[in-house]
Amino acid sequence: MRRNVSQVIGYTLEQCLSPRVHNALFAPSLPLRYTKGRNDTIDSFDGRKRWLHGTATLAQKPRGVQLSSERFPQLKRGDFARVTDSDLQVFERLVPSRVLTDLEDIEGHNVDWSGTCRGDGQVLLRPKTTEEVSAVLRYCSGRRLAVVPQGGNTGLVGGSVPVFDEVIISLSLMDNIISLDEISGVLVCQAGCVVDKINGALEPHGLMTPHILGSKGSCQIGGNISTNAGGLRMLRYGNLHGNVLGVEAVLANGDVVDCMSTLRKDNTGYDLKQLFIGSEGSLGVVTAASLLCPRVPAAVSVALLGCDSFAQVLQTYNAAKRMLQEILSAVEFMDRASMEVVQENLHLTCPLGTHSYYLLVETSGSNAAHDEEKLNSLLGHVMEKGIVDDGTVATEPSKVQTLWALRENVAVALRADGCVYKYDVTVPMSRFYDLVADTRKRMGTDVTRVVGYRHLGESDIHLNVTCPQNSEDVFGALEPWVYDWVAKYKGSVSAEHGMGILKRDYLYHSNTGSAVLLMKQLKKLMDPKGILNPYKVFPD
Amino acid sequence: MRRNVSQVIGYTLEQCLSPRVHNALFAPSLPLRYTKGRNDTIDSFDGRKRWLHGTATLAQKPRGVQLSSERFPQLKRGDFARVTDSDLQVFERLVPSRVLTDLEDIEGHNVDWSGTCRGDGQVLLRPKTTEEVSAVLRYCSGRRLAVVPQGGNTGLVGGSVPVFDEVIISLSLMDNIISLDEISGVLVCQAGCVVDKINGALEPHGLMTPHILGSKGSCQIGGNISTNAGGLRMLRYGNLHGNVLGVEAVLANGDVVDCMSTLRKDNTGYDLKQLFIGSEGSLGVVTAASLLCPRVPAAVSVALLGCDSFAQVLQTYNAAKRMLQEILSAVEFMDRASMEVVQENLHLTCPLGTHSYYLLVETSGSNAAHDEEKLNSLLGHVMEKGIVDDGTVATEPSKVQTLWALRENVAVALRADGCVYKYDVTVPMSRFYDLVADTRKRMGTDVTRVVGYRHLGESDIHLNVTCPQNSEDVFGALEPWVYDWVAKYKGSVSAEHGMGILKRDYLYHSNTGSAVLLMKQLKKLMDPKGILNPYKVFPD
Repeated sequence: MRRNVSQVIGYTLEQCLSPRVHNALFAPSLPLRYTKGRNDTIDSFDGRKRWLHGTATLAQKPRGVQLSSERFPQLKRGDFARVTDSDLQVFERLVPSRVLTDLEDIEGHNVDWSGTCRGDGQVLLRPKTTEEVSAVLRYCSGRRLAVVPQGGNTGLVGGSVPVFDEVIISLSLMDNIISLDEISGVLVCQAGCVVDKINGALEPHGLMTPHILGSKGSCQIGGNISTNAGGLRMLRYGNLHGNVLGVEAVLANGDVVDCMSTLRKDNTGYDLKQLFIGSEGSLGVVTAASLLCPRVPAAVSVALLGCDSFAQVLQTYNAAKRMLQEILSAVEFMDRASMEVVQENLHLTCPLGTHSYYLLVETSGSNAAHDEEKLNSLLGHVMEKGIVDDGTVATEPSKVQTLWALRENVAVALRADGCVYKYDVTVPMSRFYDLVADTRKRMGTDVTRVVGYRHLGESDIHLNVTCPQNSEDVFGALEPWVYDWVAKYKGSVSAEHGMGILKRDYLYHSNTGSAVLLMKQLKKLMDPKGILNPYKVFPD
Repeated sequence: MRRNVSQVIGYTLEQCLSPRVHNALFAPSLPLRYTKGRNDTIDSFDGRKRWLHGTATLAQKPRGVQLSSERFPQLKRGDFARVTDSDLQVFERLVPSRVLTDLEDIEGHNVDWSGTCRGDGQVLLRPKTTEEVSAVLRYCSGRRLAVVPQGGNTGLVGGSVPVFDEVIISLSLMDNIISLDEISGVLVCQAGCVVDKINGALEPHGLMTPHILGSKGSCQIGGNISTNAGGLRMLRYGNLHGNVLGVEAVLANGDVVDCMSTLRKDNTGYDLKQLFIGSEGSLGVVTAASLLCPRVPAAVSVALLGCDSFAQVLQTYNAAKRMLQEILSAVEFMDRASMEVVQENLHLTCPLGTHSYYLLVETSGSNAAHDEEKLNSLLGHVMEKGIVDDGTVATEPSKVQTLWALRENVAVALRADGCVYKYDVTVPMSRFYDLVADTRKRMGTDVTRVVGYRHLGESDIHLNVTCPQNSEDVFGALEPWVYDWVAKYKGSVSAEHGMGILKRDYLYHSNTGSAVLLMKQLKKLMDPKGILNPYKVFPD
């Protein structure tokens, strides 16, 4: 049943970050176009509540998601064996009572988070230990059975579900927190730990994960590592390449590679764990990790600022970096069209007047009074210099949340326009808004809106284009033009989530031929039979 | 001529970080033992001033450094070709007028920074461009000529000089800063840029490199990347795996791998640049890089604290992390023996009374008054709780420097004892001081001192043992016992600098067999003929 859009108004920040709303916020490009017949409005998530509580016990069958093998007819099934009864018997021996073959049980693991990709996996394995993962992979390698490792299945490029009939290896039961050293802030856990669970263990010690994601209630650390998930704290704490201290992974042939250091400094040989960070499970299955965890900040404040030129936006960003330095934790961007859509479609109220651009500047620190003073100094400076035309500061949690809600609800609001074409890309700072402006010029009156928003601090922009319904013409005008534009200005066609199957054809757009060649050689070295997450990352 | 040790008293922090003093401070284990006849006192560096001004124009020949091929008689020269006149003609065509064959000119490039390792390289090439590096490597690969890439030659494990007659490829002439984006803080440069030069370019923009090293006046960014140099800012800014955004490297066969992203977020395929960070030039020669550069802090403060138990040290560290959080930039450790040696041998004055342990806590922030208030709060808290027995805070630069000098001069002071056995290792925080205590117990009265100091914040400890002169008995009691101890407690035998040739035999001490196997496979894949920096990293 269609819900009134006004029902989504007033999401708390926590809600905005829930898997449910996350889906609306962060859904990637393409799905709305391809999933014909799918309900494009926000209530389309109602039927998928099962995702909110893990994937293991899900029974409800998602409807209307086309099989990837049909959707991408150019894809040919690889030269892999098919699972036989004899294989099932072996699996049952390797992971007793944790071999699922009932298609109702498996269905939730065959369809990706955004309801865009649907595999035809016939068997799901649920190992509890690294040894079991190793035994399974050794067997699959010997039998030439393709596998797809699956964490929380919250990825948005179709990387975590089968394309054909790959064996699904779910890490969900590998969810033990192994150790926590409060002094060094290093936590060691199995790969299947959900980020919320990890934060639950850290919280009594005043610690938190270095990354936080919209899907934190479902996504697993192993999947985060495999996709180098960035999230909301990256500006402050950096990415997982710097914060993951150790990884244990199982190679395609079943060999366990143990790089489980818990040390911040360790320069003994090649830093192998880096190979598994961001390689989308195609070089090995991450089974455990150690994480460097920062302290929870004592205070969080937010300023919402309005600017009338993009030059002013950059000046403001520069001033924030200079004046807030160590307490700066986010610089989020919205253009006027983004602010208009949350006002028009969700009836949220912006405390500022109308401006061409808006910045949400967040600070996190150990002393609320100090942070507030710094933030007010910034505000005074940018107002006095005429860089910012209007601004407001919030330090009280509920008000902080209200300001964040404006930014976080853009994606939800856009859905009310009908069809949304979404692009999550990174663009060099100097070109950050040109992508939106050029797209707007190109699309003219053929579309309802062209909006740009997201993480200015990381040069990560969401370009979203809306129109009343799917349109071949609109889509044809957008792609591959958008990706070509990004490539021309040396941006990244995938700021988050990796290539999966949805973006794999654009791998060369953000990588040189020499780099892709070496990637392929690495893949060949570490997975010579190509059984690990096939059809992903690389174009044919 | 022997200098009076008192002449080294009162080094400024800048001086302490100079290449000259750096050598005394950070020299690794073994050299003093092995370089028989070498003058062990601080004036032994006088004769090596040439290192301070780059390596290209050095003419003075280092004396008394044994050839590595003689020192390690178990090492056999690999199955590589020897450079012929015909090769020299080709080199002259590839890098015109930048082929050095005069052994006097090359000598400085054959001997490592600490005067420990000496190669027998007969030719030095000085390319200016990536294309030249590529052409040279393509040729060397075809001819099966071994090469050693060399940056500032400031490494301390013998990784940057030949072992036999490898062709030396110096990156020193590749020192162009290519671009600087002030807004994003991303600098792009050639690999031969010295860190000081990079900081010189950043400074007018209020930016700095994310790492700073004792050898910053000589070391080059390519070498830093190849060894994943940590340095003094790592507690705050993390390591180079997180701060290097892009790398260009030339593979052994001459292929150029261009991963020169300048983006903070880019998840398109495997993050290949990580392969070149910390692999000691054995997988490829880094020719250019892009770096994420933080802002220079407006204020720096330091507290020196005295504790009487190691439990109190850890409690203090924990309190500092909690109360200083975002402004904490260093937590340095000295035991009583370390403080005694700077007092006894260098007559430095400690403003505190005698304590079992000392902590130097540094803050860096954007507001001096805020930082001082936070630091004073910390001091009040730890004194009130009885965790710290005595403490002092310095905010004025010269006083900050005076406190730092105590910590920075430990290594210099130790040399006056005669012979120093030095171990730079990482040990899990809970075991941080046990290594020193156990060593002290083991060595008893056979040695003058056993001291422990360095970066508590990164679990990186320098264990130094002194005695009047080299002693086979002392050495035999220390090794491999120290490395075995580190391995037993899952520490790292190389906190900094990598394995090179000096530590390669201990690679398995800090890595599992499965990890080393994969490292070897990577090496074989990327350098099938093994021409890149042979004899390093891996034991035979």
